[in-house]
This record gives sequence, C-alpha cells and structure tokens, in this order.
Amino acid sequence: MRAARLHQYDPEFRGPDYLSLDEVPEPTIREADDVIVRIDGAGLCRTDLHIIEGIWRGKVSVELPYTLGHENAGFVEEIGPGVRGFRPGDPVIVHPLITDGVCPACRRGNDMHCENSRFPGLNCDGGFAEYLLTKERNLVRLPDGLQPRAVAPHADAGLTAYHAAKRAARVLEPGAWAVLIGFGGLGHIAFQVLRNLSPARIIVVDRSELALSLARELGAEHVVQAGPETVAEVRRLTGGKGAEAVLDFVGEGGAIEQGLAMTRRAGTYFVIGYGGTVQVPAIDLIAEEKSIVGNLVGTYADLLELMTLAGEGKVRLAVAYYPLEQINQAIRDLHEGKVKGRAVLVP
Amino acid sequence: MRAARLHQYDPEFRGPDYLSLDEVPEPTIREADDVIVRIDGAGLCRTDLHIIEGIWRGKVSVELPYTLGHENAGFVEEIGPGVRGFRPGDPVIVHPLITDGVCPACRRGNDMHCENSRFPGLNCDGGFAEYLLTKERNLVRLPDGLQPRAVAPHADAGLTAYHAAKRAARVLEPGAWAVLIGFGGLGHIAFQVLRNLSPARIIVVDRSELALSLARELGAEHVVQAGPETVAEVRRLTGGKGAEAVLDFVGEGGAIEQGLAMTRRAGTYFVIGYGGTVQVPAIDLIAEEKSIVGNLVGTYADLLELMTLAGEGKVRLAVAYYPLEQINQAIRDLHEGKVKGRAVLVP
Amino acid sequence: MRAARLHQYDPEFRGPDYLSLDEVPEPTIREADDVIVRIDGAGLCRTDLHIIEGIWRGKVSVELPYTLGHENAGFVEEIGPGVRGFRPGDPVIVHPLITDGVCPACRRGNDMHCENSRFPGLNCDGGFAEYLLTKERNLVRLPDGLQPRAVAPHADAGLTAYHAAKRAARVLEPGAWAVLIGFGGLGHIAFQVLRNLSPARIIVVDRSELALSLARELGAEHVVQAGPETVAEVRRLTGGKGAEAVLDFVGEGGAIEQGLAMTRRAGTYFVIGYGGTVQVPAIDLIAEEKSIVGNLVGTYADLLELMTLAGEGKVRLAVAYYPLEQINQAIRDLHEGKVKGRAVLVP
Amino acid sequence: MRAARLHQYDPEFRGPDYLSLDEVPEPTIREADDVIVRIDGAGLCRTDLHIIEGIWRGKVSVELPYTLGHENAGFVEEIGPGVRGFRPGDPVIVHPLITDGVCPACRRGNDMHCENSRFPGLNCDGGFAEYLLTKERNLVRLPDGLQPRAVAPHADAGLTAYHAAKRAARVLEPGAWAVLIGFGGLGHIAFQVLRNLSPARIIVVDRSELALSLARELGAEHVVQAGPETVAEVRRLTGGKGAEAVLDFVGEGGAIEQGLAMTRRAGTYFVIGYGGTVQVPAIDLIAEEKSIVGNLVGTYADLLELMTLAGEGKVRLAVAYYPLEQINQAIRDLHEGKVKGRAVLVP
Repeated sequence: MRAARLHQYDPEFRGPDYLSLDEVPEPTIREADDVIVRIDGAGLCRTDLHIIEGIWRGKVSVELPYTLGHENAGFVEEIGPGVRGFRPGDPVIVHPLITDGVCPACRRGNDMHCENSRFPGLNCDGGFAEYLLTKERNLVRLPDGLQPRAVAPHADAGLTAYHAAKRAARVLEPGAWAVLIGFGGLGHIAFQVLRNLSPARIIVVDRSELALSLARELGAEHVVQAGPETVAEVRRLTGGKGAEAVLDFVGEGGAIEQGLAMTRRAGTYFVIGYGGTVQVPAIDLIAEEKSIVGNLVGTYADLLELMTLAGEGKVRLAVAYYPLEQINQAIRDLHEGKVKGRAVLVP
Repeated sequence: MRAARLHQYDPEFRGPDYLSLDEVPEPTIREADDVIVRIDGAGLCRTDLHIIEGIWRGKVSVELPYTLGHENAGFVEEIGPGVRGFRPGDPVIVHPLITDGVCPACRRGNDMHCENSRFPGLNCDGGFAEYLLTKERNLVRLPDGLQPRAVAPHADAGLTAYHAAKRAARVLEPGAWAVLIGFGGLGHIAFQVLRNLSPARIIVVDRSELALSLARELGAEHVVQAGPETVAEVRRLTGGKGAEAVLDFVGEGGAIEQGLAMTRRAGTYFVIGYGGTVQVPAIDLIAEEKSIVGNLVGTYADLLELMTLAGEGKVRLAVAYYPLEQINQAIRDLHEGKVKGRAVLVP
Repeated sequence: MRAARLHQYDPEFRGPDYLSLDEVPEPTIREADDVIVRIDGAGLCRTDLHIIEGIWRGKVSVELPYTLGHENAGFVEEIGPGVRGFRPGDPVIVHPLITDGVCPACRRGNDMHCENSRFPGLNCDGGFAEYLLTKERNLVRLPDGLQPRAVAPHADAGLTAYHAAKRAARVLEPGAWAVLIGFGGLGHIAFQVLRNLSPARIIVVDRSELALSLARELGAEHVVQAGPETVAEVRRLTGGKGAEAVLDFVGEGGAIEQGLAMTRRAGTYFVIGYGGTVQVPAIDLIAEEKSIVGNLVGTYADLLELMTLAGEGKVRLAVAYYPLEQINQAIRDLHEGKVKGRAVLVP
Repeated sequence: MRAARLHQYDPEFRGPDYLSLDEVPEPTIREADDVIVRIDGAGLCRTDLHIIEGIWRGKVSVELPYTLGHENAGFVEEIGPGVRGFRPGDPVIVHPLITDGVCPACRRGNDMHCENSRFPGLNCDGGFAEYLLTKERNLVRLPDGLQPRAVAPHADAGLTAYHAAKRAARVLEPGAWAVLIGFGGLGHIAFQVLRNLSPARIIVVDRSELALSLARELGAEHVVQAGPETVAEVRRLTGGKGAEAVLDFVGEGGAIEQGLAMTRRAGTYFVIGYGGTVQVPAIDLIAEEKSIVGNLVGTYADLLELMTLAGEGKVRLAVAYYPLEQINQAIRDLHEGKVKGRAVLVP
C-alpha cells in the first residue's frame, strides 16, 4: 500500500518535500483485539510539522522511516478474533492513543493517562496511508450521516478542544464568562462545544480578522481582536471582574500573561496551546485563588460524546481535502497558513 | 482599653519595639448585626510581621495608628439589636473576614470571595486588644471543652490549612499520595485534617529536624528532610510516579519547583505559602495534565467544620501564651524562630 | 392598601369567592434589613388553591385572615437602615423564602434549607396586595428589559423548575436522554433550562395535546402523549435503555410508576410534582442502581441564575394578567384549567 | 478437579445437602485474556442461599448443574497469550463481574454497569472449586502481607460495602452523621471504610447485642439497639435533625421506613440490603428534599481501593474457614446464624 513516511528530520523546515510516498506492506492482524482500518481521511495537524522538524525527537522513541498521521477515520477492514463490537465495513473514527485497558487510569475511565500507551503517527506507524493498524478499544462507530473523512480531525484536534471545553463547562453557571484565546482549529470547536454544554457568555479573542469573522458567523456575540488592549477589553465586557474560565489555545507570545490577567478571582485558566512559559508570583495565585489547569487530549468517552454532538449537527468542522499524493503540498499550505479550515488527506 | 497598635512601618524590622500598647476607647455597637467580643486570645501570625514591615502597605488602605491581630477568639460581650444567634458569654472564634452576606459569592457559600469585605487586623482595628468589634456572621460558637485562647490561631492559620487540605482530600483516593511541604503552623494542621478527611498516604517534607520529629510524633509515617534529593526521594516513595496532591506551605526558596516536580501525571499542586514565583513551560503542564491551584483562607463553613474536628479532639494545636503586654517580645521571638507552636496574646 | 386575604378554609372548594379584597394597613420597616416592595405582579400558583382548601393547615402555623401570594415581583419602595444593595425604584423579583443567613445551610449556600425561615403567602402575609414586606436577602435585581410582572412566576414555579433541571443537567452528557413528565408551568421552564444547561436529548411527556404542541413550538424534537404506552415509547426512543434523567412534574396518577420504569440503569428519577406515593421494591433500586431525588424550590443563587437566563432571552414565560380585583376569577379559571400560561395578579 | 455444584433448587431449603461435590474437568484457557486462578478461598454469601432456593431462577439464565461461589481469591495458575499484567503465582482477588471493557459504561470506569457481563457463581461456573476461569480484567493483585483466603469475602461483600460507603463519604462533612443499619458482613466493613474516608460521626444500629458489641470493639462510639425507639434515639443523638447519610444493609422488616425517617432534611438514604419495599409519599421526599440511592457491587477501581485499605491494615475482616468438603455444613451454619464472621471455603 502507499504511505507517506518520514525519512529524515528537517529542523529548518526547508523542504521542498517532507514526507515521501512509499510502497509498504499492508498491516496484518497479530493480536486478538487488533483492527485494521481502511483510511477514508487523515487530518494534518501542526504537530506533524513539529515532528518533521524533530521537536519530538527527544521525547519519543521511534525509528525512521515511519508513517505519520494521528487524526484518522475510515472503515473497518479486518478484525482480530477477539473483536466483537465491530464488523468490516463499519464507519469509524480512531481514538489516537492505544491504551492497555487494565491499568488503574484506564479502569477509572481516564484512559489518556494510561500507563502503557502508544500513539500511532507519533511513535509508531500512523494513518497517512491506505490502512492503519489499531485496536478495538480505539474505535468509535460514527453516527448515521457522518462521513469518516469529514470528521477525521476530531480524532485529535476536536478531542482536545472537547476535553478542555467540557472541563470548563463545569465551572460555568448562567451569567459566567468564558474567554477563548485563539479561534483556529481547536478554538472553533471548543466554541461550539461550550455553547452546547454550558450557558456561559463567550468572548472570542484572536489576532486574525478572518478568525473573528468566522466566530461571528458561528454566532459569537463578543469578539475581541488580540492586542495590547485585550485584557482591558475583556475586563470591560465582564464588568471589571474578568472571566470565570479562560481557555488558551495559543499558549505563547503573550497569550499566557493575558490569559491569567483576564481570569477573575476564583477563576480557572485552562492552558491547551503551548510554546510559552507560565510565570506568575505565588502571591497572585493565592490572593485571588486562581487555578491553572493543563489540558491534554480527551478520553475515549470524550470522543464518544463529541461524535454524538457531531452526529446531531451541533458541532461542525471546516475541512479542506487533499489527495494523499499531495501530502507535501498540504504540509506547505499548512505551514504557510493557506489551508482554509483543517486539511484532511484522502488516500 | 489597652490595644497593641502600629504607629509606623519598620521596613527593616529593626525594632526593638514594633507595636505600642495604647489606651484606646472601647468599641461600641453601631449596627444591628454588630457584636463585641472580649478577646481571650489572639494569635500572632507571620503576616503581622509583614504588615509591620510595610509589605501590605500598597495593597490595603488603612491609616496608622491601628490595632493588629486577625486570629481572634473570646467571649461575646455585647450584641447588636439584630443578633439572634448569640448571647453575652458565649465562647466564640472569629472568622477573620467581615463579609456582606448578600453578594453572589456569599450567597453561594464562597464568602471568602465576598465583593465587599473587611479584614480586621489588616485594614481596620483587630484583636490585639481587650475587645474586638465584629459581626454576627463572623462568629462560630465553640464546642464544649474548647477554650477560646487555645484555638485562636485556627481563625486564620488553621482555617487556611483546613481549606487547602479539604480541597486536596477530594482528589485523594485510597492508595493516593499527598506531600506536605512545610510542617509549621499551617502544615501540622493540614496533616491532621488530611488524616481525618482522606485515606491518603502522606509524606511530610521540611528542612527542620525539629519539625520532622513533631511530624513523627503526630503519626507521620513518611518524612523527608528538604534538600537537593527531596524530589528523588518522593518519587522513590511513590513508585516513581510522584504524588496526586502536593500542598506547598512554603512557596519560595525552591519549594515551588520541587513541588511541581513531585506532582504526578494528572496531579494537583496546591500553593498556599508565597514569596516565590511559579514558573513552568506550558508544555510541561499539558503533557502531564497537571493543575496548579492557589489557596486562600477558608469560608465560614470551613471554620465551622474545623472547629467540629477540634472539638472532637481530632485536630490539636500547639500554642505558647504571651500576656498582651509582651507583644513585642512575642514578635521578636516569632521573628527569631523561638516560638514553640503558635504564639497567642492574652489581654 | 388593598390585599386579597383568606378568611376561612374552603375544603370542598365551593366558592364562589375564595379570598376577599380587604383594606389593610401598609407594611412598615421594622428591622435594619427590611425592604418593602411595591408589587407589580404576583403569580397565582396551584399551591394557593391547596392553601384555600386547607391542605397546608396542619403543616404550617398561621392565623386567619392573612394575605396569600408567594410569586412576587415589583419595585423597591422603602428600605431599612441596613440595606446597602438596593434603592427605591429598583425592579426586583422576590425569593419566596425569608432566611436567616447565618445557619449552616445558609452559610453553605443551601438557603432553601435554612433552619429559621418564613414563607410569605404561606405562613405570613404574601404578595396579593399593593405592598409586600420582605428582606434584602430575598431580592434579585432584574436585568435590563425585564418587567417585574412578566417574570413574577419565576419566583416559585420557575425557581423550582430551574433547581431540578440544573441538578439533572449534572448527570446528562452528550447522548444522554432526559424525560420531562408534565409540560405545564414548571415543565415548560425546565425544558428551556435543560436546553441551555445540557446537551441532553429531551423527551416531553404530557397527557394534553395542547401542552405537546406548545412543546413542539418551543423546539421539542421528541414528544410522547401520556398513556399506557408511554414507557414502551420512551424505551423505544432510547434504544431500549430508558433515560439517564427523568423529571416528574406530575407526581401522581401513575406518573411515578412510569417515571421509575423509564429511568435507565444507573439513572436518576427526580420527583418534583406530588400527590402520589413512591412505591418500589428495594431490589429494583439496587439491581439497576437507580436514584430517586426529591426536589424543593431553588436557592437564592438559583434564582439569580434563572433571572440571568431570562434576561438573555433564553427562558420565556407565558403569562395571563388579571387585575388584583379579579383574584377570585383568576382562582376559578386556574381551578377550571382555563388559564393560558401562568396567571399573574396586578394590583 | 473437585467442585461444589448445584443440581437442583431447594425452594424450602430442606437440605440436608444443598450442593454436591463433583469431579469435573479443569477449566482451560480459550481466549487471549483468559486467566485460570487456583482458588485459595471462596466466600460463602447469603446470595448463595438465595440461589439454592431458586430466587434468582427467573432473573438469570443458567443450566444446572453448575458451580456456585462468587467471592474468590487465590493464585494465578495459567494465563492466556494476551495477558501481560500477571504471572503464574501472583496472589489475586477476583472482581465478581466479567465485563467487556469496551462498552460506554466500562470506558467511563463504571464497569459494574457493563452492557455485556457475566457473573461466575451466579450465571456460570464460580469458585467453589479448585480452579476458576476468569479474565485479566477481573484480577487485583494483593498487596504484600495479604493471604488470598483471608480477603476473599471482599470480592463481593466487601466491595458492595465499600462502594456504598464511598458514595456516602462524599456527602459527609465534619460534624455530619452517618447511620449504619445492620452491622453484619457488609456493615462492619462499611463502618471501617467510612472511618477512613470521612470524618462523619457514625451511629451503628443492629438488632443483635453481639453485633453491637463487635461494633464497640471496632471503636463505634454510638450504638443503638434496633427496636421501636430507634428513630427517636437517632434523632436524639443528632440534635433532633436526623443523619445526613443512612446506609441500610438490611432493607426489610421495617428498616426502610426507619431509615427514611432518620434521614435528615437534604439527606440521603442509601439502600443496599433488600427484601422490603420503599414506600413513601412524594410530598415527603420533596418537602425535605431527600434522596434515595440504590447501591450495587462496586467497580474494579473500588476493589483496587478496598484492597489498598486492607493491605494498609485499615479494614479488617472476620473469617471462619471451612474445607471445601464441608460446604454443606457451612451452608447450614450460615443459614442457622452460627458462622462467626464470614465463612470461607478452602479447597
């Protein structure tokens, strides 16, 4: 089968090509709970660019070449002898983390903290290919009416946004304010999730006028262009108090400082984007009793819930399709900010 | 009446005297819910030293001279016409924050986030005196067998420790680990509270051998002397994973970095002590999904619960009494680390 | 002033008149936190009919004659010397329960469990009059654009519905089902609250075709006419499993049995309406681990939140106005099921 | 191997023998995650008596003869090819419910609500035998120092008690009261769990003086002999208000009525024992806002936590050993109330 593989890191992202389309053997069922998924679409994520640059090199152990792609959806092609919940042909989205199901974290439903996990597309072969090897535990059957390729980015981008928004919803009573910093791939999903899970008043902050106009189209009532006046503007909108929840999908370039500054007394700053450093005197956290909450990708149950919302038409995703052959074009477009919505590779 | 008042700030803490014992008019009932408490004992707190140094000068608005003392307990002396729950002679401990009872925070039970509050001993006259003016809302009647002066430090030190420990208890299942950094006035109360509110395994960290031996006396099974090996030692005790909850009562001098480093994946670092700065790359909070939670003094209900535990003999306090006349000696002793337990001024 | 007072119980509800319009002295400020509200509108509630019938006779202690009316809204007329948060002319809705603010329940925010409470209109003079005596603690300032008389029924009917719906929302993840039994005054508010506070799929059950068509108008996707097939129909809609939350606003005539039968494994049956008896073998509760949760009127904070939603146009109320002089006509209309929406008396 | 099997139901429990000791083939590994456990001890439960009487006949589908025994502990004997977490020789206790690990309930950690489960000893072969076939997902490794046979009853009796006590602990602040009705096999574990997980004041109610003296030995401060004055006595101890949590391990013969009557305003009645019927007017649940919560066996994580407490010496169990050959004697003894503690069969 054809697979887009990384043969060498490109620290300066020179290109022009980043992955090569190789002919590789199809994966085969080896364990009872193995499943092979025929990829219908695989989302391209900024993390893929970071992998190519070698940023993850020291953090994960993987040998080149290997296949990238961790936002995968498609149809069940073949199942191991122990699989009972799925049959060939079932349309599915694939939770990105392969978990053991037996460690305490898994047993409590917090499977994204599994003690024995793998992350295909990051530390083993992923979904920029015709077929993907995964496990029954990773599959969520798609509700009627959802095409796998149209929801593929939910496998990671959507799931992370959902996870953070759901946690934030728990602290948002009617009348409370939530700020979303960054209205890109994750932010625009978090916005829709928050509107379904909470009655909060939402303020969208983004540097880009295009992003803000998308926010308005999706129904945002309060949008603020990021700049030196952002905190003051959020304070003004919130009666001088700041927001009960701030969700920061940027996490660098001043967003963290601003995010903390616009969090109100007893409020929570959720950090999802990264790159920068949280730096705050302990006295400031204490005097106003603020919390800072790190957010990872969501659990399997989170993905189940997100797919339910997607199936009900409550969370929509903007995608741009590329044939798998054009993977390098897609990477260049993403790098240059030319992709409208989320890029999805179609084998 | 006699009151120990601050006439001028002493930024370098030269002394020899810090407060002067003045003869001042007794407070009088002015509003329906006013209460005058005859002070039986008033705890001396490190915050009092900071006030004398002028550290709080820019943060609160108060005119000199005024009476310090925010850990107050005694007997009801006189009540306003609207007070129905207390009568002269009732033994009481005084919640340190005067709150309005009608703002949304108060109405939800989070009165320490009251929008219209005063803090006697910090921004108006406190309890280093014979009498204190407070409100019915601030009083907790003492259970039988508790002498006001013996529990006075619970009004602030104990209340803050209780508040943090109670929040930590919510994330501590059987088998989970909690680390207490700093086993002084607050830490030794938090330890006792945690043992009553959770089944966690507790590790006590302190620089002082004296503090650690007190911890052992109180039943601590795991004590670690603070030093360069602290994090490694905590990791060793916790099977390499770190603790689900870290309560940092120091908050400076390396404690914050160590505290975060010994917090396990999906764990929470509670910061109570202050002085230092929290500084952590966003990626680190995200990759392990850690939370950082600032902690303030507790609510009225927290004080009620702490007094219940104290009345049941489940939380004990070590106190050293000083006559009010020896306030400056007490301050010097505290400054020089010579007080065993918590200093309490007795008028 | 004019007030509609009950002079004698009418166990068989013969009428023709139930309350008499008397000329009584206006209330006066007696305590520091007293407030006199000029009534703009007072909702008529089925409980008023039960009071007239004498059903509450044994449960509350009150001497005839007295003024009914516990769903009150209007404008602040006069304030006691201790009132700081409101001024004459402020538009307000009145929480129905006068609470002491100092008992443990009040201090924890559960003021509807206050240990020293009064309920004007039930055990002392209520709001079917020109003026009502209440307390600062009972007032919620209305958001801009809300007329007191248009929201008066929220003071009790809306508040109870909100309280139950908010509790139910906590157990409703995306994909979960909620059933509302009874789509009258409370049910139609609960429906709107639930849609704002949770992503649940909602099934509306009512006997009346009129009620079901109102449900459809408000956007209900699943409506079921109450009858012998109700449980089967709910099971069918929910894939055979029943609903995670059932909110029963009827509480008699078979609704309880049906409500429990349509509650799924590990689900919760919220009982709000009354008249009937919960009767279920312990083994059935255990084998499916169901919960049964009684629901009272909401807290002050609940009313604050509901008014926020109302001010944002997210919860609408259908009301029919009657001049206070026509109180007996309003009572007859309510008794005969002729009121469209909720009757509100306007002095 | 030898196994104690049920050949025919005995509705009147005539005996003299109930199970017969048959020679049956040893179980064999069939699926990748299968595990065979060599039974070290298997608890005898009152449910076994009910099975013999045929009470469960209509509720579960099983063909006679089959082997009873659902409280199993022992040593891993053999593992399937997919088992990675255990090795032959490991000492284990066996969660009683075999679950699929992939349904939504399992994925959220609520595995006792698994949609595809089996319960060995109830609807397939159990542990009154030399070997038991189970799954990797069912095993909890025993902490050092625990002998399997000494903890076997925790697999069901202990787990159910733990589950209910843990849920109750969440509503028990310092100063709150919990009542345990029934201080037998489950009750005496719940007592120890509650003391470790909450600061509640505990009242033990039992008909038997022997049970009450055991309660006193275990440190119970408040014991009440069940009788017509029980409710009055509980109300007296609780200042007239009743208990925040009532855990009813009896569930018949008046316990339910008494349990509900001693539950305070806003309190929760947990029903664990069964046989009787919950019968209460809706108005009573509403007026005091009480909850009734059914309780089943605990989750896998619950068992993990209970074993942690047991390993730390915080929960002790009284057991009486019988050789497997004396199974019928053990059954007779249990039926006649002659077993001290919990009977455990040793093959």
